[in-house]
Amino acid sequence: MRILILGGDGYLGWPTAMHLSGHGHEVAVVDNYMRRNLMRDEDVEPLYKVPNLDERIRVWKDVGKYIIKKYIGDLNKWEFISQVFQEFQPDTIIHYAEQPSAPYSMLRREAATLTINNNVGVTANVIFAVREFCPDAHIIKLGTMGEYGTPNIDIEEGWIDIEHKGRNSKFLYPRQAGSLYHTTKIMDTDLLWYYVRMWELRVTDLMQGPVYGIFTEESSQDDRLLTFFSYDELFGTVLNRFIVQAVANHPLTVYGKGGQTRGYLNIRDTLNCVRLSLENPADYGELRIFNQFTETFSVNELAVKVQSAGSGLGLDVQIRSIENPRKELEEHYYNPAHTGLLELGLEPSFLTNTELVQMLEYVMNYRDTIAEYKIIRGTKWV
Amino acid sequence: MRILILGGDGYLGWPTAMHLSGHGHEVAVVDNYMRRNLMRDEDVEPLYKVPNLDERIRVWKDVGKYIIKKYIGDLNKWEFISQVFQEFQPDTIIHYAEQPSAPYSMLRREAATLTINNNVGVTANVIFAVREFCPDAHIIKLGTMGEYGTPNIDIEEGWIDIEHKGRNSKFLYPRQAGSLYHTTKIMDTDLLWYYVRMWELRVTDLMQGPVYGIFTEESSQDDRLLTFFSYDELFGTVLNRFIVQAVANHPLTVYGKGGQTRGYLNIRDTLNCVRLSLENPADYGELRIFNQFTETFSVNELAVKVQSAGSGLGLDVQIRSIENPRKELEEHYYNPAHTGLLELGLEPSFLTNTELVQMLEYVMNYRDTIAEYKIIRGTKWV
Repeated sequence: MRILILGGDGYLGWPTAMHLSGHGHEVAVVDNYMRRNLMRDEDVEPLYKVPNLDERIRVWKDVGKYIIKKYIGDLNKWEFISQVFQEFQPDTIIHYAEQPSAPYSMLRREAATLTINNNVGVTANVIFAVREFCPDAHIIKLGTMGEYGTPNIDIEEGWIDIEHKGRNSKFLYPRQAGSLYHTTKIMDTDLLWYYVRMWELRVTDLMQGPVYGIFTEESSQDDRLLTFFSYDELFGTVLNRFIVQAVANHPLTVYGKGGQTRGYLNIRDTLNCVRLSLENPADYGELRIFNQFTETFSVNELAVKVQSAGSGLGLDVQIRSIENPRKELEEHYYNPAHTGLLELGLEPSFLTNTELVQMLEYVMNYRDTIAEYKIIRGTKWV
Repeated sequence: MRILILGGDGYLGWPTAMHLSGHGHEVAVVDNYMRRNLMRDEDVEPLYKVPNLDERIRVWKDVGKYIIKKYIGDLNKWEFISQVFQEFQPDTIIHYAEQPSAPYSMLRREAATLTINNNVGVTANVIFAVREFCPDAHIIKLGTMGEYGTPNIDIEEGWIDIEHKGRNSKFLYPRQAGSLYHTTKIMDTDLLWYYVRMWELRVTDLMQGPVYGIFTEESSQDDRLLTFFSYDELFGTVLNRFIVQAVANHPLTVYGKGGQTRGYLNIRDTLNCVRLSLENPADYGELRIFNQFTETFSVNELAVKVQSAGSGLGLDVQIRSIENPRKELEEHYYNPAHTGLLELGLEPSFLTNTELVQMLEYVMNYRDTIAEYKIIRGTKWV
């Protein structure tokens, strides 16, 4: 299959590219290095250096004889995206090409505007490019569980049947996000749902929870193949941040009461979820939605797990509640469905002590390069 | 009250500006003449010439001694909008500044991109400008009944209580629009709802049905004060188009079965709805939503009304079903609530035969200038 990975330099994009090319697919990656630029601009560069796409592609070719094609440019520009689609003619598009950080989207007006323009603009261009150059292609879009927020009823898998005053109708499950970044993902969903109905597109929208982890099968052959590992307040996800904090002897930064509960998954599961989705594509005119996570944890539960794994390695891990910079419920009902990907055959990698120890041990190699000032920046969301 | 009207040159913007300045408010209008430019670009200029804003403002001053301030520029540019807000310091912002045509948004990719960029971009800038320069101001946003689409259950006024598996929660009423234009209005709602929660903004979102009519109290004093009257497929609303078709001896163009039912209102009611909303503002942290229409009609019912009014004037009005260029249900359930504005004191102007005759008679003055090629362009939505 010819697979075009948009945002192919990112935390998930590059591991996905290796995974799918390793599984025999013909893969091209597209990126404009936006995330690298933003990390440099905000002085929150990740734990270790990551080679650019050309170098990653060379290393991956050396270790496995796999060829990955690359396009560098801005997918928000029609001239560029139309060229890429016409030349590569993808069967599947995996769309990760978004400004991926909720805290970044809350930093200041310019960051919010960048997030809206990039995320909504690229999604619209992807829709238009598929319509024009490859109408049979399957779009796999990375959404987020955060689109649903934390409602007081069960979260279903994308859709809900509503009975109201004696009549029934099926709707997109109502969305109400907790950050501007998450709100742009809702706007993406609006666009996709509209054009799926209008133009009979084939779309899978993966409502992903926070991802953790460093290692994938493909990166085990050479450290230069490892993905970004961010531990700062802007680009780091919570568990990855706790790992670095534990190693740095910094108290784990629990926001407020720590009862915030989300669905998490290992980065290896992301790759499998995406692969299962593309091997079992959505139908024409179908917006297929999967809730992509494997386990739910509260922030407090994650902190205790990291503390416990750390103590096995002789780390004295403290947990400290700090003032919550976000406006969110710190205790809430949370019961989201997630059966679709299991039915496609997903075999989850759960969050074990072994997994945590492996991450801690790897990060300990970089103990001296951890910059404590990156850990908490204190940006308020309101 | 200091009232800033964004899109103050438009079909509703200019009549609103006169209405509110006539009611003693201090009014400024902002526009970049986008609609005029698009109408010229697409060769669908309206029935009669409309003077530019400077001339309209001079005439309005001559007839009533009312001063309206104007700003010409693009609200999607931060440099411009921030200047306007800092200088005028509004108490209320009325936000009409959107590409207003559903058919235009479906014309071609460039038109879709313009619609997304303008509508979402301006709404975001309005939010950021209020936050930065006038956080106490009340935003009145023109949404559309089309955000709801035509679901199989009753349409409530913006919100719905959902009972699901024994638990309850209140949500934004699920939205599923029938055009890209309407989808951008959903995206606006997403942004407003997010920032209302995050920043305690005060917002009224008016979910308006199709508006008809030419005359308002204020324009009666000088024809140069009349608003645009579009009768083409792109910028004309259905009843206004039927009026012109009747006068031009063109069969009324009913799309498909003609059972498409919507909530309609007279342009005079729009002005009153907006005035009632600003005189009774939303609270801090409230996204108040009103369904803004006064009566529901199917397209067939509208056609028969125009036919009947026309025959009283000696016009032989034919009705013809043509292939539907849109993808929409031609027969459907439709039962939308609309009590909020009535409770604020709205006294509707219903669609009477007298109203139709008055419109027909006025348009008959321009019978020779009607360009038949503008009536149907045949742009398919799919």
